[in-house]
Amino acid sequence: MLRTHSLGDLNAEHIGQTVTLAGWVGRRRDHGGVAFLDLRDASGVAQVVVRNEDDFDHLRNEFVLQVTGTVDRRPEGNENPNLASGAVEIMADEVKVLNTAAPLPFQIDEHVEVGEEARLKYRYLDLRRPEPARIMRLRSEVNRVARNLLHDRGYLEVETPTLTRSTPEGARDFLVPARLAPGSWYALPQSPQLFKQLLQVGGLEKYFQIARCYRDEDFRADRQPEFTQLDIEASFVEQDDVIELGEALVRELWQLIDVEIPTPIRRMTYAEAMRLYGSDKPDLRFGLELTELTEYFKDTPFRVFQAPYVGAVVMPGGASQPRRTLDAWQEWAKQRGAKGLAYLLLKEDGEFTGPVAKNISDEEKAGLAEATGAEPGDCIFFAAGEVKSSRALLGAARVEIGHRTGLIEEGDWAFVWVVDAPLFEPAADATASGDVAVGSGAWTAVHHAFTSPKPEYLETFDTDPGSALAYAYDIVCNGVELGGGSIRIHQRDIQDRVFKVMGLSEEEAQEKFGFLLEAFAYGAPPHGGIALGWDRLVSMLAGTDSIREVIAFPKTGGGFDPLTSAPAPITAQQRKEAGVDTKPEPAKEKAEKERAEDGGAQA
Amino acid sequence: MLRTHSLGDLNAEHIGQTVTLAGWVGRRRDHGGVAFLDLRDASGVAQVVVRNEDDFDHLRNEFVLQVTGTVDRRPEGNENPNLASGAVEIMADEVKVLNTAAPLPFQIDEHVEVGEEARLKYRYLDLRRPEPARIMRLRSEVNRVARNLLHDRGYLEVETPTLTRSTPEGARDFLVPARLAPGSWYALPQSPQLFKQLLQVGGLEKYFQIARCYRDEDFRADRQPEFTQLDIEASFVEQDDVIELGEALVRELWQLIDVEIPTPIRRMTYAEAMRLYGSDKPDLRFGLELTELTEYFKDTPFRVFQAPYVGAVVMPGGASQPRRTLDAWQEWAKQRGAKGLAYLLLKEDGEFTGPVAKNISDEEKAGLAEATGAEPGDCIFFAAGEVKSSRALLGAARVEIGHRTGLIEEGDWAFVWVVDAPLFEPAADATASGDVAVGSGAWTAVHHAFTSPKPEYLETFDTDPGSALAYAYDIVCNGVELGGGSIRIHQRDIQDRVFKVMGLSEEEAQEKFGFLLEAFAYGAPPHGGIALGWDRLVSMLAGTDSIREVIAFPKTGGGFDPLTSAPAPITAQQRKEAGVDTKPEPAKEKAEKERAEDGGAQA
Repeated sequence: MLRTHSLGDLNAEHIGQTVTLAGWVGRRRDHGGVAFLDLRDASGVAQVVVRNEDDFDHLRNEFVLQVTGTVDRRPEGNENPNLASGAVEIMADEVKVLNTAAPLPFQIDEHVEVGEEARLKYRYLDLRRPEPARIMRLRSEVNRVARNLLHDRGYLEVETPTLTRSTPEGARDFLVPARLAPGSWYALPQSPQLFKQLLQVGGLEKYFQIARCYRDEDFRADRQPEFTQLDIEASFVEQDDVIELGEALVRELWQLIDVEIPTPIRRMTYAEAMRLYGSDKPDLRFGLELTELTEYFKDTPFRVFQAPYVGAVVMPGGASQPRRTLDAWQEWAKQRGAKGLAYLLLKEDGEFTGPVAKNISDEEKAGLAEATGAEPGDCIFFAAGEVKSSRALLGAARVEIGHRTGLIEEGDWAFVWVVDAPLFEPAADATASGDVAVGSGAWTAVHHAFTSPKPEYLETFDTDPGSALAYAYDIVCNGVELGGGSIRIHQRDIQDRVFKVMGLSEEEAQEKFGFLLEAFAYGAPPHGGIALGWDRLVSMLAGTDSIREVIAFPKTGGGFDPLTSAPAPITAQQRKEAGVDTKPEPAKEKAEKERAEDGGAQA
Repeated sequence: MLRTHSLGDLNAEHIGQTVTLAGWVGRRRDHGGVAFLDLRDASGVAQVVVRNEDDFDHLRNEFVLQVTGTVDRRPEGNENPNLASGAVEIMADEVKVLNTAAPLPFQIDEHVEVGEEARLKYRYLDLRRPEPARIMRLRSEVNRVARNLLHDRGYLEVETPTLTRSTPEGARDFLVPARLAPGSWYALPQSPQLFKQLLQVGGLEKYFQIARCYRDEDFRADRQPEFTQLDIEASFVEQDDVIELGEALVRELWQLIDVEIPTPIRRMTYAEAMRLYGSDKPDLRFGLELTELTEYFKDTPFRVFQAPYVGAVVMPGGASQPRRTLDAWQEWAKQRGAKGLAYLLLKEDGEFTGPVAKNISDEEKAGLAEATGAEPGDCIFFAAGEVKSSRALLGAARVEIGHRTGLIEEGDWAFVWVVDAPLFEPAADATASGDVAVGSGAWTAVHHAFTSPKPEYLETFDTDPGSALAYAYDIVCNGVELGGGSIRIHQRDIQDRVFKVMGLSEEEAQEKFGFLLEAFAYGAPPHGGIALGWDRLVSMLAGTDSIREVIAFPKTGGGFDPLTSAPAPITAQQRKEAGVDTKPEPAKEKAEKERAEDGGAQA
């Protein structure tokens, strides 16, 4: 090693010892022929005193030094209590420059505000700052804690392939041309879903992997083309088993930031979450439940409220919002695709004002405070129309109210399991939200095509797809989905029927998932699992808003890496060698040919 | 859980208890209206006794059952000492079929020989067999042990990107079209090399990752297009530090199979390895060093031996090989590209016979036994010609002799560090062995372009590339390279000079590695690391010949997955969406354009 001690470890015990240190020059202060350097390494910072002007004259910020010297007690009054090494300083005898540094594009300092583009282009400088380095250390610890818990419970870590076959799961696949089989392509997996199920068919029973996954999406604000999930699957488990494991993981992980999560974590049905919070990811750090008023307004003279659904959410103290704030709420609602956000202000004297007031009857007004729980001084926001979109609007308003009124407190943690989600949703809803439907039917899977119906819907899910509930569970923290999972289908006939509801023809199902269906024929055990979105989970633990903060080398919104400038053009030779321009045979012919060849080997 | 106990855990302590078990039907024996089932789960096997014919009549192999019953002591004489649960049996009260199984393509049995193609197509059945399952468990343990050791030493696990820029390291890149930037492509990384070095520039100091890597090679026998390495890098380290860490890892990993590796592990220079063993991966489980005889034969009348190099290796007892075996050696040599393998047989009476005998002088014969260490009854094999190819031939003959004569004993382990390899090799040698040269110069890097010259060659490596030694170390076990690493270049000017030797123009270097060169300008610390080939290492621990045995879902030689039939044709729509047919701008123009835009953001 080029050093004997780490800087952050130095303390009064080392006084009098000769040490060799290595690190980067942080701040430097010159005082009458003596330089005081803050020398920094991964462990921390210590003060180095250089008395020979020849030794420090040429030093600039971020030069890399090797310093040999003696540890001294700092002169009284000069201690730095904010520094682990703050009681001592190193009197340098020898200063060797291991590397120089050009003037920096930005200073290495926790206080300097730097734009994200610059931070990512010079990520190797950004990582020298305390906060990004802290987050990298935290992420490493998160991995360690999770893996050890799973190993201790007998889970096996198994690596699944990433050059594989398309596994349609709601997004587009990234594709990789296969040079040795021109015209054929690998796909990067959207998740290890099919392989982890095959491992269950293979009898390994308890599987986990911190797995890289890939989705070629039209990047929304905080998505990455490659991301990480903690992927878990086990055989002979029931929903309660997976939930208990998820809780154990969350409990141990939050202990890393000294937070005790009480377990068992509350469970809520999807229906209840939608009804009371207008979201399948309810933020339970605060109350403010939605009130359904459809029945209440069933005879209303107000045409807007003559709707399949009328609901309300109360904003405590909201009656005092100025007119322009109330107008801004209308804009806010319009950005979410609504026409506006009807409201009533309940004045301190018990009178209602606001645009809705003159449209509803006196009788309706009379009972409204009690029906919604509004107090004098509050504002009641309404949504009326289709159930789903109206609840979604009120749910979003609720969260916005939580933030604006300070009901959401930093440092609060509210976990909830959302269970009993619908098995299917209308395919139009899924494509509208940007997903790629797997089949061509009127229905598509809410979770994914491999989720089992709850036992009580096994008979009826294909005759009445809209009513069937999934054997699925999502874990939600502070309104953010940390992960989700399900008990899977393990019987071939049920999987066939689910594919059929999704409009996958037998031929398509065979082409896309034939190997899974075949595997199910040979004694597949009941199994289930969960996947936790690792980037999001670490970002919550780290207290950062963006998952980019918890990724060592993240990409920007368009999937671009400002550091390496990837993606980049390829050469004509690379293109030719990769066989990109070999036109594929149509998939159908190929599949038939392969069947004829008994799925045989490839040249 | 669908069970109360695991089958492998059952023992005499459970006698009298009511248990619920789940697993697969292995063997079944019917005796007078009673069936004895070997029920199997991941933990082991136990015997289940079913007395109700209706319960067992329809059961076939690999049906998945849930059995409730009472644990009983087996009748005296019926115990099975080979089974952990062999003292007990479960008298079934209730047998529930959780899933059926169609007739299997092959039996789930450790004794059944199955072709690899079938095993991979039905890998989920193969994994139910004891040996593949054992290997998966071992691999998971290997990961656990290695990670814990590294965590304990303060190493951080950092995930590096896999959708990135081409990192030329001797093989072709797999490419991924970027749909959002048509005409641009990501590359899958051949290793995290550049990113782990950037993490050092970023001051994280101690990094590791069990990383997926990708090389698009013309698959040789035992290569996979995606493979795994334990990737390690640290700052302020010297060669001895990395070697010590590598030894600690190997020591702990071999303890998993109850083998104590003595440390420190022997070190040998590359020159010595080539001279004595004709290989940079010497198998030191046995001696049989090569003897150089160039000087010895300097005045020989034998024209074949009038060569730049003459060497020999002795085969103990080889004089008694029949003529056809000696002829087969000639074939063996020809398959390695040699003209043949000259030999002398030293008879028990001290006389030499064989084709070489009549060509060399009596004087030469007289001293040859002493020069080579041959004893009466031995055979001396010779190679003459260019140094490198002759030594390689003798080195291969040596290993073959080791196997044929039983000098290599199963269960022996011989580790060695090979150090001080040349920094460069003639580019022609690299391309001849199937690698892709990074630059277009006469020389290419033996390890890779980022390996530092040893300090004593820092001045001269570019004026005399053939003499410079690399600051590199490979760990070799039983003649197999487990991994290798080096102290890296951390100074921009040295990296520039190395690129120049490799024939990389300044422009190409900028285009390919500009971001690394720029990073080196901002205070890069001295750093180094190592990567261990994880598939190979696990296969050695597992005692298997092929790395395919230690991969959950491996591909066959051509990069084909018999299970999912990947790679596969894509649809015209996928092709269109992925932007595959957008012709890229020539890389050069693009790079210039980007420079003009100051490496700016992408739409």
